Amino acid sequence: MQFRLILLLLFLLAECSSNKEAATRSRPPNIVIILADDLGYGDLGTYGHPTIRTPHLDGMAAEGMKFMQFYTGASVCTPSRSALLTGRLPVRSGMADNAIRVIFPPSEGGLPSSEITIAEALKKEGYATAAIGKWHLGHREEHLPTSQGFDQYFGIPYSNDMSPSMTPQGRAREYPPLPLMRDAETIEEEPDQRQITRRYTEEAVRFIEENRDGPFFLYVPHTFPHIPLFASEAFEGNSPRGLYGDVVEELDWSVGQILKTLRDYDLAETTLVVFTSDNGPWLTEHLEGGSAGLLRNGKGTTWEGGMRVPAIAWWPGVIAAGETTDALATTMDLFTTALSLAGAELPNDRVIDGINLSSVFVDATANVRDVVHYYRGTRLWAFRKGPWKMHYVTQSAYVGDSPVEQTLPALFHLDHDPSERFEVSAEYPDVLVDLQRAAEAHVATLKPGPSQLKIPAWTE
Amino acid sequence: MQFRLILLLLFLLAECSSNKEAATRSRPPNIVIILADDLGYGDLGTYGHPTIRTPHLDGMAAEGMKFMQFYTGASVCTPSRSALLTGRLPVRSGMADNAIRVIFPPSEGGLPSSEITIAEALKKEGYATAAIGKWHLGHREEHLPTSQGFDQYFGIPYSNDMSPSMTPQGRAREYPPLPLMRDAETIEEEPDQRQITRRYTEEAVRFIEENRDGPFFLYVPHTFPHIPLFASEAFEGNSPRGLYGDVVEELDWSVGQILKTLRDYDLAETTLVVFTSDNGPWLTEHLEGGSAGLLRNGKGTTWEGGMRVPAIAWWPGVIAAGETTDALATTMDLFTTALSLAGAELPNDRVIDGINLSSVFVDATANVRDVVHYYRGTRLWAFRKGPWKMHYVTQSAYVGDSPVEQTLPALFHLDHDPSERFEVSAEYPDVLVDLQRAAEAHVATLKPGPSQLKIPAWTE
Repeated sequence: MQFRLILLLLFLLAECSSNKEAATRSRPPNIVIILADDLGYGDLGTYGHPTIRTPHLDGMAAEGMKFMQFYTGASVCTPSRSALLTGRLPVRSGMADNAIRVIFPPSEGGLPSSEITIAEALKKEGYATAAIGKWHLGHREEHLPTSQGFDQYFGIPYSNDMSPSMTPQGRAREYPPLPLMRDAETIEEEPDQRQITRRYTEEAVRFIEENRDGPFFLYVPHTFPHIPLFASEAFEGNSPRGLYGDVVEELDWSVGQILKTLRDYDLAETTLVVFTSDNGPWLTEHLEGGSAGLLRNGKGTTWEGGMRVPAIAWWPGVIAAGETTDALATTMDLFTTALSLAGAELPNDRVIDGINLSSVFVDATANVRDVVHYYRGTRLWAFRKGPWKMHYVTQSAYVGDSPVEQTLPALFHLDHDPSERFEVSAEYPDVLVDLQRAAEAHVATLKPGPSQLKIPAWTE
Repeated sequence: MQFRLILLLLFLLAECSSNKEAATRSRPPNIVIILADDLGYGDLGTYGHPTIRTPHLDGMAAEGMKFMQFYTGASVCTPSRSALLTGRLPVRSGMADNAIRVIFPPSEGGLPSSEITIAEALKKEGYATAAIGKWHLGHREEHLPTSQGFDQYFGIPYSNDMSPSMTPQGRAREYPPLPLMRDAETIEEEPDQRQITRRYTEEAVRFIEENRDGPFFLYVPHTFPHIPLFASEAFEGNSPRGLYGDVVEELDWSVGQILKTLRDYDLAETTLVVFTSDNGPWLTEHLEGGSAGLLRNGKGTTWEGGMRVPAIAWWPGVIAAGETTDALATTMDLFTTALSLAGAELPNDRVIDGINLSSVFVDATANVRDVVHYYRGTRLWAFRKGPWKMHYVTQSAYVGDSPVEQTLPALFHLDHDPSERFEVSAEYPDVLVDLQRAAEAHVATLKPGPSQLKIPAWTE
């Protein structure tokens, strides 16, 4: 612990003396964020899945820290990714909308260029930056990774089900063929999705190799296990869990390749790697969707299964090995943590919702965050403070179900009752009042940005 | 692997040459079975619980093997314990009954003395034997551990809720005060339950110390986390999960003490330790009951949550460290495994349902068992073959719900769908026919023993 604390202090000191005399500072750590798509809280071996085997992620947890209460910024793709990269609730940047929930192929909007991404902030500190995978924050040139601080981009720019055949009925035009892009160019149409995880992995490994001397920021938002599911020949048919398991096991292999590359180049002790998911499992996809484990519900909902995800942080020598933490944390905290570790100044002209997780990394019992906001679109549906969670509105599934307005907000004690089985507002009226007050104070000061998700000629 | 295989082969060779020339054999391993009561599949850190911390059990799994598809012989206490100790489905020995499901204080019956327990078989091979904890197989002298092959007994002989105040309405006489027994004597009435886990642990540690030179069989069926819940001062109030978490964390400490004692006396490499639970979590007890994780339902049901339990096997140098297996296994297999390792002959005058797990211990991918029987009382309610499970009858809870007869048996693919969400009999009619045939063949040859659970003057 002592040694790890000293190491981290050195990094944090570098931050304090961030006076642009970069040459005099110790080199800041590399940062790698790997994001699965629709992977549920219960889908990894180390989170208890019985038939999906994830030895590389389990090993990453055994050498690093496993978060048991780690949240996304939203329960669907586009706003969740916006939150992670900007450290801000998506409602602030207009990346949340009550009608249109994610970016679609006809969308003209995207993450506003006024937003500051981790990549933009770290680039200013001399980091090499790359995004490899599913972007989903706008696919016009001004919204692409290469316009948002990333030196390079390779990947499918939105969800892998947004192919011509998936065009919703009643649209004037079909979706275009699914693009695979390099930087701002489409280099293939309808790429063979069985090869996508392998190709992303090769790109990621190459980026690390090429940038082994610099500090670098690598963001790998995988296309899978979002549907439709595809695994390469080496994985298809291997998992007792079926194709979903094959796909997750290939992602596990991919993580293993990245960690191996870091070890091979002696970068393990100078690189923070975080693995997590953009939201919970897509339960309405039946066996093609994952599992939220003991959590209630999944993707698209503000029940725990929708927004609490697996998260593993790895940084040998700094992060406590084999520790499990129940500290509250969110993907937005990765923004603040990354900037702090890089010695970048946090933007002071806007609200940042992220909190620096560094103290949790060295002490699993540290608590840096007390509150979690569960937005659906632009409205706060639920609110957590300490162990307590209050629901204003609930809805059981991403599609096919109607919202239920609570006459009195529903209250759950998540530490006692992670599955949200026992509503206890009648037993704890004072707690409910306290949470309502805190949530209302938040909402009162919140300034929603104009929606960036509207689609011309498609306003359903 | 090679070395472990050789070690195990040495033990198994000892078994083959089991010609009563005990002096010429290598010493067989000690065997320790630790059984929690009503602990659910999702209640340990290593099985994914977010707020219960079990570092000793997690460490035991990291040094040993974690079973993801390990089953009990029944979904409630008495028949489950009968299955574990005799290696036989409880219906065969009359330890299952459709009306009276467990032993109650007025019960005069118990495990028939004609049954052979692990303790009886191992005692013949020169093992010292002790049972420390909750017995629940009859509390008349002829049914107590000391009449069933155990040299010593210390514990509460049935469930800790069977106190005078818990006597069901309409009974002529109150239940007697809850007894704490040593061997066949009641030494205390209504013992302080906050001290029970600690006292069991001290007894277990002392037994190991006193028998460190012999081979020994130690059976520690804990009283908790069955309700009412009690933890000692050192644990009460510690767990974010509340009292249920405190209780489980004290059991975790207890396991740590036993493993530590084995290490201290240099017995780790000559002792097989297995930790498991007697059935799933008692969900109708609300926050006082545990969690089955991603499995459906809990105690008292033949859904997976009722009979699939956590199980960790530990034997440094023999069992693969840190391995996870999805091999099917049951508590009855512990009987057959223990006898095989001890060099005892399996009884050949009766059906034994257990299977030797030794080959799984050295190879997590080995499969020794293809079938699981889910009995409720004397009837086969569900049946598993390979990944497939068929339900003839379902019921949602131990109390307060009625059985549902399926017109056509319901079919689930447990490897794909561990949560039993998607009924697929219409898609796999041939599989259903195959399972029905196998289940019916089993039932046709089964000879139920006369019920040992009837209660004089109480035949509800």
